[in-house]
Amino acid sequence: MGQGRVHLYYKNVMSNVIGVKHGIGHSQLDELADQAGKEIVDLNNLRKAGQMPYRDLPFNKTYISQVKQVAETIKGKYENFVVLGIGGSALGNIALQTALNPYMYNIDEKQRGDGCPRLFVFDNVDPMQVGSFLDWAGDKLDKTMFNVISKSGRTAETASQFLVVREMLLEKLGADGYAKNVIATTDANGGTMRTITNDAGFVDLEVPDGVGGRWSVLSPVGLLSAAVCGIDIDGLLEGARSMDERCSNTDFYKNPAAINAAINWNYYMAGKPISVMMPYSYHLKDMSDWYCQLWAESLGKSEDLSGNKRFIGPTPVKALGTTDQHSQVQLYREGPNDKLFTFLQVKEFGRDITIGGTPDCAPELGYLAGASMAKLMNSEKAATEYALLKDKRPCLTVMFDRIDAHAIGEFICLFEVTTSLAGLLFAINAYDQPAVELGKEATFALMGREGFEDLAEKIAPVTEIDDDYLV
Amino acid sequence: MGQGRVHLYYKNVMSNVIGVKHGIGHSQLDELADQAGKEIVDLNNLRKAGQMPYRDLPFNKTYISQVKQVAETIKGKYENFVVLGIGGSALGNIALQTALNPYMYNIDEKQRGDGCPRLFVFDNVDPMQVGSFLDWAGDKLDKTMFNVISKSGRTAETASQFLVVREMLLEKLGADGYAKNVIATTDANGGTMRTITNDAGFVDLEVPDGVGGRWSVLSPVGLLSAAVCGIDIDGLLEGARSMDERCSNTDFYKNPAAINAAINWNYYMAGKPISVMMPYSYHLKDMSDWYCQLWAESLGKSEDLSGNKRFIGPTPVKALGTTDQHSQVQLYREGPNDKLFTFLQVKEFGRDITIGGTPDCAPELGYLAGASMAKLMNSEKAATEYALLKDKRPCLTVMFDRIDAHAIGEFICLFEVTTSLAGLLFAINAYDQPAVELGKEATFALMGREGFEDLAEKIAPVTEIDDDYLV
Repeated sequence: MGQGRVHLYYKNVMSNVIGVKHGIGHSQLDELADQAGKEIVDLNNLRKAGQMPYRDLPFNKTYISQVKQVAETIKGKYENFVVLGIGGSALGNIALQTALNPYMYNIDEKQRGDGCPRLFVFDNVDPMQVGSFLDWAGDKLDKTMFNVISKSGRTAETASQFLVVREMLLEKLGADGYAKNVIATTDANGGTMRTITNDAGFVDLEVPDGVGGRWSVLSPVGLLSAAVCGIDIDGLLEGARSMDERCSNTDFYKNPAAINAAINWNYYMAGKPISVMMPYSYHLKDMSDWYCQLWAESLGKSEDLSGNKRFIGPTPVKALGTTDQHSQVQLYREGPNDKLFTFLQVKEFGRDITIGGTPDCAPELGYLAGASMAKLMNSEKAATEYALLKDKRPCLTVMFDRIDAHAIGEFICLFEVTTSLAGLLFAINAYDQPAVELGKEATFALMGREGFEDLAEKIAPVTEIDDDYLV
Repeated sequence: MGQGRVHLYYKNVMSNVIGVKHGIGHSQLDELADQAGKEIVDLNNLRKAGQMPYRDLPFNKTYISQVKQVAETIKGKYENFVVLGIGGSALGNIALQTALNPYMYNIDEKQRGDGCPRLFVFDNVDPMQVGSFLDWAGDKLDKTMFNVISKSGRTAETASQFLVVREMLLEKLGADGYAKNVIATTDANGGTMRTITNDAGFVDLEVPDGVGGRWSVLSPVGLLSAAVCGIDIDGLLEGARSMDERCSNTDFYKNPAAINAAINWNYYMAGKPISVMMPYSYHLKDMSDWYCQLWAESLGKSEDLSGNKRFIGPTPVKALGTTDQHSQVQLYREGPNDKLFTFLQVKEFGRDITIGGTPDCAPELGYLAGASMAKLMNSEKAATEYALLKDKRPCLTVMFDRIDAHAIGEFICLFEVTTSLAGLLFAINAYDQPAVELGKEATFALMGREGFEDLAEKIAPVTEIDDDYLV
C-alpha cells in the first residue's frame, strides 16, 4: 500500500473473484503491467520535456500566492460569490465545494467559515434559472462578486452571462462599481476577455497556457472560488503533489494511476464500454461529474494518433450510493455485463450520527437502533459490491481514509494521470476536443453571427420541424 | 400532431437524415408499427383487466382530495418540509420540485408561494450530509414537517432517517410534538410504518397497492410535497390524463409512447445499448433522474417472460444542455455510435432575458447583444443536434410547448407508458426488481440483524481488505 490518504483497491476485478470470463488473471495483469509500464516511462519523459503542463500546477507558487491575495480582498466583504463559467470552468469548482464544504453551506450562515460568501456557479443559459437568481441578487449586487472564467472570453454561454451581469452592474452600481465587482480569470496575454479586463480594470487571474479546461481545476480557475469559500487550497495542492509522486513510479504495481488506467483500458477493449463511478458519500457526488468530463472529452476520439478511424471511448456514468441502489442496481446486476464499476468509499466520515431507538411496536427495526450511520453507509457499499460480484461484475474501489482537502487533491491527481495513461494506452490524443467546434460554429450561425451564413443554410433542415414526424 | 403540450419528434432517427446504417427506413418503421401496434392492444387489455394500476392514478379522486386536505393543514404553518424517502419515494418529488418551482425557491422567501415551506428531500444516509441539515434545523423543529415515505417502513435508509428524526423530535418537542410533526405516506393496511403510524397517531396518506415505487409519482407519494410547495397538482393530473388517452391510441403513428418505445427498442437490439436523455432546460434536469430509475429498474432484466436468460437492458444516461456540450459532446460525436439521444426542448420559456450590450473593445461579441437567452438556449440545442446528425447519431426530441404542471403530467405519463410498451417489446417483466433484494439482505447481514448470520459469513471476503491489491 502506498503512502497517502487515497488508495485504489483492485482485488474485485480479478478472475479469482469473478471468474475467468469477466475477471483478470495474474498473468494477464503482468501483461498489462508490461504495456502500461512503458506508458509510465513515456509519460514521465513527456513531462520532463515540458509537455504535461497540467502536472506542474500543484507546484506553481505564483498561482497560489496570487489566488490567496485575491481571496483575501473578498473575505468578509461580500455575501455572494458567483462563478460564470462552463465545462472545465465550472465542474471542478462545483466538485471542490460539494466535497469540502457542508451540505447547508449556502443556507446556514453559521456553517460557512468566518467571512465566507455563499457560492453560486452558473454553467448554463436557461433564462428561467438565471432570472430566478437575478431576481434575488438584484438588490444585493454591491455585496456580490462575479468571477468570470473563460480563457478566450468567446464561449457563447459565459459571454452571454457576462454581458447580462455587466449591464446589470453598470445600471445599478455605475462603471466604478461594475469594475470592482468582477474578477476575471482569463488568458494572460490576449483574447476577448483579456481586452475587456484591461479596458475595465478588473482584478484578474490567469488561465494557464497549454492546460485544457478539464485539466485546470488546480489552477486559478478552480482555486479562487475554493479559497474564497474557506477551502484549504494548500492542503489540496499538497495532496496533489504527493499523489503526483506515486503516479510517477515506474513500478506498475506501486503506481495507482497505471493500475487504474490499465484495468479501465482492458475492460473497454474486452467489450465493456461503460464506466460507472459510484461514490458512497454525498460529498463526493460532484467529483463524478468532474470525472465524467475528464474521461469523456479526453478518451472519446474518432481517430488514433496514427490517423486511423477508430471511434473509441468509454462512456462514463455517474451514480450515487446508496441512492442509486434503489434506481440503477437492478440494471447493474441483471442487465448486460458491459460495465466496469468504480466505487468511492470513505473510511472515516468527518462526523457520525447514532441511529435512535425503535418504537416498541416495531422491534423489526431493532437492528438499526444504536448503530452508526457511517457504518450503515459502508455496509450498503459492501452489500452492493457483494451483490454485483455474485453476478460477476468487475468492481474497483477508490478508498478515502477521510474527506479533506489533501485527499481530494490526491483524488484529482490520481484521475488526471489515469486519464493521461489511458490516452497513451488507447493511442489517442487525450488533450484536444475537436468535435466540440462544429456545435459552437452552428450556434454562431443560428444566432446570426456575421460570416456564418453558409452554415446557417446547412442547419435549416434541422431547425425546420417536419410535421410528418411530430406526434 | 396530437393534441397537448408535449410532443415527440422522431425525424432525426430516420435513414433519410442519418443514412441507412444507423437510421430507420420507412418500411422498417412500418414493421415496428405492426409489432408495437399489437403491444398497444395488449397493454390496453391488461389495463382493462385491472392489471395496470399505475395508469389509474391520475383518475383517482380520493387521493387528490386527501392530499389537498393534508397540504392545507401545512400551508403557512411550517417553514420547512422534509421528505424522508429513497428511490421512487424521492426521485419524483425532486423532479416535480425542480421542474415547477423557481431555482432560488429554498433561498428566496419571496419566490416561494404564499405560505409555502422550503423543501428538502433526504434519499441517502451520509452522516455528514444529514448532520449538516440537523445542525441547522435543530432549533426550528417545531416549524419543520417530516414526511416519511415508505410502503413497508423496512427500507434501511428511510427507516434510519426516520429513527434519527423521531428521537430528535421526541427529545425536543415531546411525544405530542413528535406525532404532530410527522406525516406518514405508507401502506394502508399493514407493515412496519403502518404500525408505527397507528401507534403514534401520525396524519397519513396511502402508498397504493400494486404500484411500484418508480411508478408512484402521481400518487400521494409524489403529490403531497408538490401540493405543499404550491405546485398545481390538478393541472399535473389533467396533463397525465390527456397523455394517457393519446398513449392508448391503437394507431401506432398517432401514439407517442408506442413510437418512442419502438424506436428505443429497435436501437437497443441494433447495438446501441446506451440511451442519453439531455434536457435543454435547467428545470427538466431532474426529470432525467426520474427517467433513469424508471428505465433502468423496469428494463434491466436477466430473464425474459419465458424464463430465458438474456441479460438485457439499455443503460440510461442523464446529460444536461448546454452544460454537457462542454463535457460529453466530444464523446457523443467521436466515440462509438452506441447511443440513442433524447433531447428535451422547451419552445416558450416562462420568461426571457435579453443579453446586454457589448463593451466597445469587444465587437466580436456583438452577435449576442440584444439577443434573447431563450433563443440562445434553443440554438445551442439545434446546433448540437446538427453536429450529432453529421456524425450519424440518432436523435429524438421531446418538445414542450412550455413547462407547466400540465406539460409535466404529460411527460410523466408519456415515459411511463413508453416503459410499459418497451417492456412488452423486450418481453420482460417491467414491474419487478428482483436483483435489489440481495443487496438489502447483505446490508441486514453486515448490520448484524438476527437471522442473517450465514450471509454475513459469505460476505466477509468482500469486506476484508486484501493488502496485496491495495495501492
